[in-house]
Amino acid sequence: MEAVNAEIITIGDEILYGQIVDTNSAWMGTELTKLGIKVKQMTSISDSAAHITAALDDAKTRADIILITGGLGPTKDDLTKDVLTAYFHTSLKLHEPSLADIAAIFEKRGIEVTELNRQQAFLPESCTPVRNVLGTAPGMWFEQEGKVYVSMPGVPFEMKRMMTDIVLPNLKAHFKTPEIIHKVIQTIGIAESILAEKLEEWELALPPHIKLAYLPYLAGVRLRLTGAGDDATILEQELQTEVEKLSQIIPKYIFAYGEVNLEEAVGNLLKEQHLTIATAESCTGGYLAHKFTSIPGSSAYFMGSIVAYHNDVKIRELHVNPETLQQHGAVSEATVREMAENVRKKFNTTIGVATSGIAGPDGGTPDKPVGTIWIAYADEHKTVAKLLNYNKNRLLNIEYTALVALNLIRQSLAATVDE
Amino acid sequence: MEAVNAEIITIGDEILYGQIVDTNSAWMGTELTKLGIKVKQMTSISDSAAHITAALDDAKTRADIILITGGLGPTKDDLTKDVLTAYFHTSLKLHEPSLADIAAIFEKRGIEVTELNRQQAFLPESCTPVRNVLGTAPGMWFEQEGKVYVSMPGVPFEMKRMMTDIVLPNLKAHFKTPEIIHKVIQTIGIAESILAEKLEEWELALPPHIKLAYLPYLAGVRLRLTGAGDDATILEQELQTEVEKLSQIIPKYIFAYGEVNLEEAVGNLLKEQHLTIATAESCTGGYLAHKFTSIPGSSAYFMGSIVAYHNDVKIRELHVNPETLQQHGAVSEATVREMAENVRKKFNTTIGVATSGIAGPDGGTPDKPVGTIWIAYADEHKTVAKLLNYNKNRLLNIEYTALVALNLIRQSLAATVDE
Repeated sequence: MEAVNAEIITIGDEILYGQIVDTNSAWMGTELTKLGIKVKQMTSISDSAAHITAALDDAKTRADIILITGGLGPTKDDLTKDVLTAYFHTSLKLHEPSLADIAAIFEKRGIEVTELNRQQAFLPESCTPVRNVLGTAPGMWFEQEGKVYVSMPGVPFEMKRMMTDIVLPNLKAHFKTPEIIHKVIQTIGIAESILAEKLEEWELALPPHIKLAYLPYLAGVRLRLTGAGDDATILEQELQTEVEKLSQIIPKYIFAYGEVNLEEAVGNLLKEQHLTIATAESCTGGYLAHKFTSIPGSSAYFMGSIVAYHNDVKIRELHVNPETLQQHGAVSEATVREMAENVRKKFNTTIGVATSGIAGPDGGTPDKPVGTIWIAYADEHKTVAKLLNYNKNRLLNIEYTALVALNLIRQSLAATVDE
Repeated sequence: MEAVNAEIITIGDEILYGQIVDTNSAWMGTELTKLGIKVKQMTSISDSAAHITAALDDAKTRADIILITGGLGPTKDDLTKDVLTAYFHTSLKLHEPSLADIAAIFEKRGIEVTELNRQQAFLPESCTPVRNVLGTAPGMWFEQEGKVYVSMPGVPFEMKRMMTDIVLPNLKAHFKTPEIIHKVIQTIGIAESILAEKLEEWELALPPHIKLAYLPYLAGVRLRLTGAGDDATILEQELQTEVEKLSQIIPKYIFAYGEVNLEEAVGNLLKEQHLTIATAESCTGGYLAHKFTSIPGSSAYFMGSIVAYHNDVKIRELHVNPETLQQHGAVSEATVREMAENVRKKFNTTIGVATSGIAGPDGGTPDKPVGTIWIAYADEHKTVAKLLNYNKNRLLNIEYTALVALNLIRQSLAATVDE
């Protein structure tokens, strides 16, 4: 089956100047992919007639579907409608239903329709208007030489409503598309290159219609298997089989399947095992607690945290032995173990986790350079400490420490299960 | 003076599938615009040799500078380096300094350099390598027929570091661009539309070579004045004059000039006034402490935090009166005032700040819907409480609460100064 290809063109100087991040394209990319339509290119251009025309000419050499957002406002710097009218050799004509929609919006605001907005109801004769119930700019659906062109406003909630209600269903009906299924496997604690070596043999044996992508992040790699075929059931089975093979090669690095982040995966483990947790944070400064509490329902297992940024707080609130700080310093295995054990007792939780390190950019010493970070996990059976030597920049050091701490919890809980 | 044009090409299926939002392009667009370089197009394409080549051919018809990110990983789905090697009719050669950088990264991790990563040190002979101190993929700077092509990794923090340290300064030196000066004025607590009304008269009176941009964010608007001219000294004076006029129109909404964020501005106030602070957090769950501790040197004024996510912790650690919780609930003015006052006493700081609210999506009630959030500020003279009703989503509610809490501190300290 021929793959159906799409391209997305977003129009507006504010995107090129970096004043807004173009989130429309990613959203449309996700929705088209779900329909099994392959997005070949995303293009952002300025409100220039020549450039819009060139972008259309370029896009139609690769794509069957061209989705355009932006440049439909009522002001004179919005050119998209006039450019499309010329591009398809047609002319503007008043579209009464659109005028009625625009009038309704102004009635809500209790004001008269302005002449500028009235002009928005004039649409190219050769297009099928796409209704916009949330704004004054109707969309336009054109067909030419078997290709479909759809123009929509750049306002995200207007575009999304039009895509969901009208454009996506019509594209699905208009084009025969192959089934596309994605499987995401989340790993942590292994570098992309080492992962690739471990998976090489299996990856080379993948059938041609199943592809693997490596999506690295700070502490691991997201793996994405994408399969294309005619029968969704068979494809789902094929992908499931490959995911199982993969899981057997790198079991201990996988923390979740699908779009689940690490703090959510750890939260689920804590919930399933009816455990509670508290954190004692120096270098992460509350960020680890934030990771836990960013998950809805985390109050079921996360009791709280003591951010002991100052040594007095480590002594007064976490009862770290002053001699420990004296002898070993705040950034030491001895200190972080006491912090984890004591916060667990203090908050009466099953688990206590602690961090203490030098996030930088200042505070490093020859024997403890910036990036020297201690993490400890404590439960009723054991206390485990881990030393990190990692230095990108302050915020990344904090983020990385939180991820490694979460993974240390995950590994301890997994081990508990294995026993 | 001829305008210098640039295009940005981002490579990666994950962008086209909509699995990640391309934030690199917006960041590069902002930085290029600051140099007075005009971005003509942003293009996102897949890891396909033919498509990458076509995109380069297309881009060079419009641009003097072509910046490329992505596709430099060590795995076989990363094609950019090979495509560029062929595109510029050159060949790969081992670049020793890059190999040394890669080796250093692996040494830190305490593991051997893999063969895949070693191959990343082989670079096209005709390029000038762009050093990457944060990752294993070096960048490449090519020049051909007066045009500059730069390839960088897609990992945002690696790309940003390379752009800031090497690529942007070299582009500025290589191309003749007009003098461009930017002045950023940071505001908080005022909506864009109201700000625009207050500034309208002044904005209309701006000379034609000075432009104002409104860059709204969660809790306010960043204002950017951009001036273009031939004489930097005169331009600097003109801009300074306009910034002073502006400041007199909206003094109490401005928290900083230049690229200073709110937590840094508040941190500076605390440092200047030799004050110390501690936080007691329920709904922000440690995020407010993270905001403070994300600033280097914050240990000078930030003592710590008690994240009291569970009511037991509010009672045991923050000594909130059980009757207060009983009568008014955890999300109440009475509770948040006690939290702020008690954390201040407990940590022996000059200031205590507390948050308690319903971040959602669950936990709302008819009289206290999701987004009901109380914030309190306490010092030796007074305790001030503030109620928020704001509901976007859990993470935005948390972020917004932290920003309003920081602004409450700023306003209190500014008032102290005025007295």
